[in-house]
Amino acid sequence: MVVNSRANYGRIKSVLRAINEDPRLELQLVIGASAVLYRFGNVRAIMEEDGFTPTATVYTIVEGETPTTMAKSTGMAIMELATLFENLKPDIVLTVADRFETMATAVAASYMNIPLAHTQGGEVTGSIDESVRHAVTKLSHLHFPATKHSAENLIRMGEDPATVHMTGCPSIDAIAEIDLSLPPELFERYKGVGAPLDPAKPYVVVLQHPVTTEYGEGFEQINETLEAVVAYGLQAAWLWPNVDAGSDDVSKGLRMYRESHNPEGIHFYRNFSVEDYARLINNANCLIGNSSSFLREGAFLGVPAVSIGSRQGGREHSDNVVYAGYDRHEIRATVEKQAAHGRFPRSTLFGDGLAGKRIAAVLATADVKIQKRLHY
Amino acid sequence: MVVNSRANYGRIKSVLRAINEDPRLELQLVIGASAVLYRFGNVRAIMEEDGFTPTATVYTIVEGETPTTMAKSTGMAIMELATLFENLKPDIVLTVADRFETMATAVAASYMNIPLAHTQGGEVTGSIDESVRHAVTKLSHLHFPATKHSAENLIRMGEDPATVHMTGCPSIDAIAEIDLSLPPELFERYKGVGAPLDPAKPYVVVLQHPVTTEYGEGFEQINETLEAVVAYGLQAAWLWPNVDAGSDDVSKGLRMYRESHNPEGIHFYRNFSVEDYARLINNANCLIGNSSSFLREGAFLGVPAVSIGSRQGGREHSDNVVYAGYDRHEIRATVEKQAAHGRFPRSTLFGDGLAGKRIAAVLATADVKIQKRLHY
Amino acid sequence: MVVNSRANYGRIKSVLRAINEDPRLELQLVIGASAVLYRFGNVRAIMEEDGFTPTATVYTIVEGETPTTMAKSTGMAIMELATLFENLKPDIVLTVADRFETMATAVAASYMNIPLAHTQGGEVTGSIDESVRHAVTKLSHLHFPATKHSAENLIRMGEDPATVHMTGCPSIDAIAEIDLSLPPELFERYKGVGAPLDPAKPYVVVLQHPVTTEYGEGFEQINETLEAVVAYGLQAAWLWPNVDAGSDDVSKGLRMYRESHNPEGIHFYRNFSVEDYARLINNANCLIGNSSSFLREGAFLGVPAVSIGSRQGGREHSDNVVYAGYDRHEIRATVEKQAAHGRFPRSTLFGDGLAGKRIAAVLATADVKIQKRLHY
Amino acid sequence: MVVNSRANYGRIKSVLRAINEDPRLELQLVIGASAVLYRFGNVRAIMEEDGFTPTATVYTIVEGETPTTMAKSTGMAIMELATLFENLKPDIVLTVADRFETMATAVAASYMNIPLAHTQGGEVTGSIDESVRHAVTKLSHLHFPATKHSAENLIRMGEDPATVHMTGCPSIDAIAEIDLSLPPELFERYKGVGAPLDPAKPYVVVLQHPVTTEYGEGFEQINETLEAVVAYGLQAAWLWPNVDAGSDDVSKGLRMYRESHNPEGIHFYRNFSVEDYARLINNANCLIGNSSSFLREGAFLGVPAVSIGSRQGGREHSDNVVYAGYDRHEIRATVEKQAAHGRFPRSTLFGDGLAGKRIAAVLATADVKIQKRLHY
Repeated sequence: MVVNSRANYGRIKSVLRAINEDPRLELQLVIGASAVLYRFGNVRAIMEEDGFTPTATVYTIVEGETPTTMAKSTGMAIMELATLFENLKPDIVLTVADRFETMATAVAASYMNIPLAHTQGGEVTGSIDESVRHAVTKLSHLHFPATKHSAENLIRMGEDPATVHMTGCPSIDAIAEIDLSLPPELFERYKGVGAPLDPAKPYVVVLQHPVTTEYGEGFEQINETLEAVVAYGLQAAWLWPNVDAGSDDVSKGLRMYRESHNPEGIHFYRNFSVEDYARLINNANCLIGNSSSFLREGAFLGVPAVSIGSRQGGREHSDNVVYAGYDRHEIRATVEKQAAHGRFPRSTLFGDGLAGKRIAAVLATADVKIQKRLHY
Repeated sequence: MVVNSRANYGRIKSVLRAINEDPRLELQLVIGASAVLYRFGNVRAIMEEDGFTPTATVYTIVEGETPTTMAKSTGMAIMELATLFENLKPDIVLTVADRFETMATAVAASYMNIPLAHTQGGEVTGSIDESVRHAVTKLSHLHFPATKHSAENLIRMGEDPATVHMTGCPSIDAIAEIDLSLPPELFERYKGVGAPLDPAKPYVVVLQHPVTTEYGEGFEQINETLEAVVAYGLQAAWLWPNVDAGSDDVSKGLRMYRESHNPEGIHFYRNFSVEDYARLINNANCLIGNSSSFLREGAFLGVPAVSIGSRQGGREHSDNVVYAGYDRHEIRATVEKQAAHGRFPRSTLFGDGLAGKRIAAVLATADVKIQKRLHY
Repeated sequence: MVVNSRANYGRIKSVLRAINEDPRLELQLVIGASAVLYRFGNVRAIMEEDGFTPTATVYTIVEGETPTTMAKSTGMAIMELATLFENLKPDIVLTVADRFETMATAVAASYMNIPLAHTQGGEVTGSIDESVRHAVTKLSHLHFPATKHSAENLIRMGEDPATVHMTGCPSIDAIAEIDLSLPPELFERYKGVGAPLDPAKPYVVVLQHPVTTEYGEGFEQINETLEAVVAYGLQAAWLWPNVDAGSDDVSKGLRMYRESHNPEGIHFYRNFSVEDYARLINNANCLIGNSSSFLREGAFLGVPAVSIGSRQGGREHSDNVVYAGYDRHEIRATVEKQAAHGRFPRSTLFGDGLAGKRIAAVLATADVKIQKRLHY
Repeated sequence: MVVNSRANYGRIKSVLRAINEDPRLELQLVIGASAVLYRFGNVRAIMEEDGFTPTATVYTIVEGETPTTMAKSTGMAIMELATLFENLKPDIVLTVADRFETMATAVAASYMNIPLAHTQGGEVTGSIDESVRHAVTKLSHLHFPATKHSAENLIRMGEDPATVHMTGCPSIDAIAEIDLSLPPELFERYKGVGAPLDPAKPYVVVLQHPVTTEYGEGFEQINETLEAVVAYGLQAAWLWPNVDAGSDDVSKGLRMYRESHNPEGIHFYRNFSVEDYARLINNANCLIGNSSSFLREGAFLGVPAVSIGSRQGGREHSDNVVYAGYDRHEIRATVEKQAAHGRFPRSTLFGDGLAGKRIAAVLATADVKIQKRLHY
């Protein structure tokens, strides 16, 4: 199992636990990419608190946050993971979703004749993630799609139906079983920069990543969101973007706005534990940005969300999500409408909370054939 | 355009020429992987004789020929190509078929938002090539399949039909327009090891690559073929295998057999020019092994071929191909039957000789959208 | 010529100009490492304003700023530079001082039989730079030491005296010929964060890098300096540290102090042009930290400096430099004493302003033997 | 401890054993570079027979055997070793001599603040090895030179005398304690190609590596040696060259000669165990080529040797060695003179057989300071 980022970890944590609890399975945990970088929050420390000790650490991010370095980071991760797989000799490798580290894991494992299992295949979105997700599907031997529709997509793409296991998304598991009320000290527990948030007052959560296929437009895009959030007026818990190409532009937009406007009521965070992130969004008035968590966990929690731009375009979603373009007025208006609507009913579109157990059960018993063949 | 091996070059040469002849297009040629290695024949020299001067050279093969080094070579190629693309700034990148360098080219280009064009997509085979070919399809923006059936496969896999251009395979172009008679001095012109072949006598051509998904079995597999060819008794022009995982095993099998049996009538070659290779197989009694050229060029030329094992399993083919398992008796019997049948009628299943021109025309006019989306 | 950071550039700019002016020489300029990263200031833009267009760009920093990533960045830079050298085919490669990119350049060039010229060899300091500088000397074919004493060191280390050219340091050239008065708008021209500085009031300049051989202590070290500077009370222009292992600790120290204390009168800058940096330090009351520029340019300018800790330990210096340990009281007391002393007389210890021309002249005429041999 | 080639292993084996026998020390063994490649003999298998199980395996050779790939292999090895050191956390790293893997080990360890111990420093030779050996010295914290003169060189180069331990070369240990008579079945035990040798008849041993600083001349150089050996007329045990730049040229020379001349009495070997190699050369009439073993082990054994060309130029040697240029007549004449002289008396110039124990003792007790400083 290769964990590469804070988001990665949340989406697989329940599987790690289920693997650990299954006597037929032994867990080898490799952490790499942004999960080992301080500026993305100490994911390693959070994992160790949760009882998962990494078997190995790899540094694979080529600094720059450009399309070029994204490609190079993928290449470097393949080289590193190949050496680790050579020495760890895993029986199966599990990888998550559609990030460049996912691609790296998939390429390394499949050239090394190691069966590859993949979660979140078959979904449709924007960004380079869309291409990568489907390419990883074509390299994978076991599929754990999150929704019925994605499972169907996998089969239409030529995957053998016997290898497609509709389990739901493990990210739902983590939030299905915990107390989701807002801990009063939550905002203090996680350091960050900017005005401290008042847990007694309503707030929004903002998380907007760069869109790699719109590289160069991130600075303008984030400014529209900034203006909309400030104009809307509620206090905001704002998370730094991931390490994709264009992240520098988004961060620069955030830093420059902060320097010049010193916006009251916006606090910037690096990271939360999986559970605290669920609590954070569960108690928000509205979720704003383009994180997939707004569509996945958001559906289960029924929190109103505004999905901005193309990154989640085409993705299945529940009623809690409304789209807006990169326009401050449209964003603000949509946020107001969504916040006014308030809570949506729970949707199990992306899972019912048992995905981890189902995935572990398949991993423990699957009889994988290394040689794939287009199944039509 | 990235050329990575002797086979790569033959399959794209006519496109290179068509690009050079089209005033709307400018060719940047990168050669890498085994195309720069002496032991795979001096592909660079052959290309320069043909009038193509490489823009840049990259070394990307991690030595070892194991599944691990295959993965590492892919990673290294991505890192190298990303730097080259950063500095060369191509408008479009064209890549061929399904080798690990193809995967590397596809990953680098797609993360860098460079439109990617791909030949030979949609075909079905064995080996890791099968997975890689379809993964590359999911990263590609323009498809140039070789056959009608592969074009249909691409569309079933969710590619936008507007991006699928059935052009035929450029490998056919090279052989459609030349004199295919056997130059009497052909066997002398290309050095190699072993007994010299007599051009006046009948001969077979053998080319058997390792099957990566059957890694570790190459030594036994090649021995079955060796025994069958020796037992069959005709002189043989035998080509060294490619650089895939397991190549060491195949080469070891060939070297050890040669040392211990000193087989008369087998001559080992590293490489031929594209045209001379066509002449070589065109005049053979039978083609033996698992090269895709036996199915592609072989169909057009109508030369009897025996395809051994799973590597070409499931691939479209014409009547000239019969399959045999890794068994010396079955191979020999099949070779005898095929040789007895003699020449098959020409089949244009894989192309009619105009693929290069069609591809150049699409490249010159295509309006590519970087953002892909599953098309159902 | 490989330029890798803002400091690198200042130390070689006059050589680049002299090479450009010499008809016998042609300049190929590769920029890489932190010189291509936004967070270290846009070195590329500054270079282009100066009339130098890079021949190629390479990304070589593995993110993390740990000892491990420093090693990996070195390895990656070697791989990248080897490909560039393969394609650019330089007749000679010039590299600067003692950074990890310097090591990478030296290893790549020397394995490729490309004559290597090196500036700033033979000097003695702390940090890993000390080991690297001397290792690079042992790989270099031409030496351009900055001082008489370092030239002697090179010969004692076994370098052939015929290859040792005492030219002075090119970093002095840039400041020897320009108007060094403080432009009133200087502090506005360069963005940054923190309170704006008043050019009419006295100020200090702080630049403190991590010490790689004291990895893990950077956070405490920078806090001592912060407390000393704040207690001293003058406004301060503070530059972010370089990309060495431990830089994260230093940056974290700076960021946390800034968040919690919001120190008035400290402004943080990413970068200055070579000339503006000279003007900045020339007009400072005192220079504080461990930058080598305090010893080099500082000697020529006669600006009082306090060199903290071991990084510059053992380095030749003029009277303008006094050392202090990592102790806020000692630092403050030393700063006060130095500021009270005021300006020192000009020292040409590190150069007289003609190094660039001397170096270009040697490069244009040198007859280099690739095979080195210990010269005793 | 990083072992990278067959030669590497022989030169450190006695140290490995002494470390294993010392309760204060724990051995972590990484094998990489050519030690994991089949075509250089199965070094791993030989090590495992000797009771050493590698902790990890790394593939680090970029195929090509050109100056460019030599640089790239060094870079790749640094990246790989950094990850291994990050996860293995060694207290000290021991590296051998002057190969490019040695350079990689030295760079990785020293940037990671891991004390570095080095054998065979201070010696003088030709090839790039000369530069690399001294560069590694400047990165090393503990020196184990083989001779008194090299120990003096290290101190003259500015190394702290307290870190220089004249131990002799561990390569002598292995041969000091074993029965050195020729096992009659030796030539059969090791496969290879060419005519079988007759153990009852006199023979010569040939081992000639490429000289990296004379890249491009290897083909001619090896042909001179081939002609001389064939003309001399004794049967010859010929070892394939190492993986340095130019190895392809040497191998090509050997292969072409073999194909065209089919020389009787020359047998080509990939590898011998450390002990059997000692037996092989101990019973030879003459050693021919440019291997350092002819000077080191050769001195102890007193076997007449002809050292060809510049590779061992300037190296300390005993009376058993006479130099010859790249000229078939000079080589043949020198071989005849040396063979006529016969056995030389034992010389302990390079060691007395106790180096391994001395080195282990220093490793177990050394108090290493990470921060180096030129010691004058």
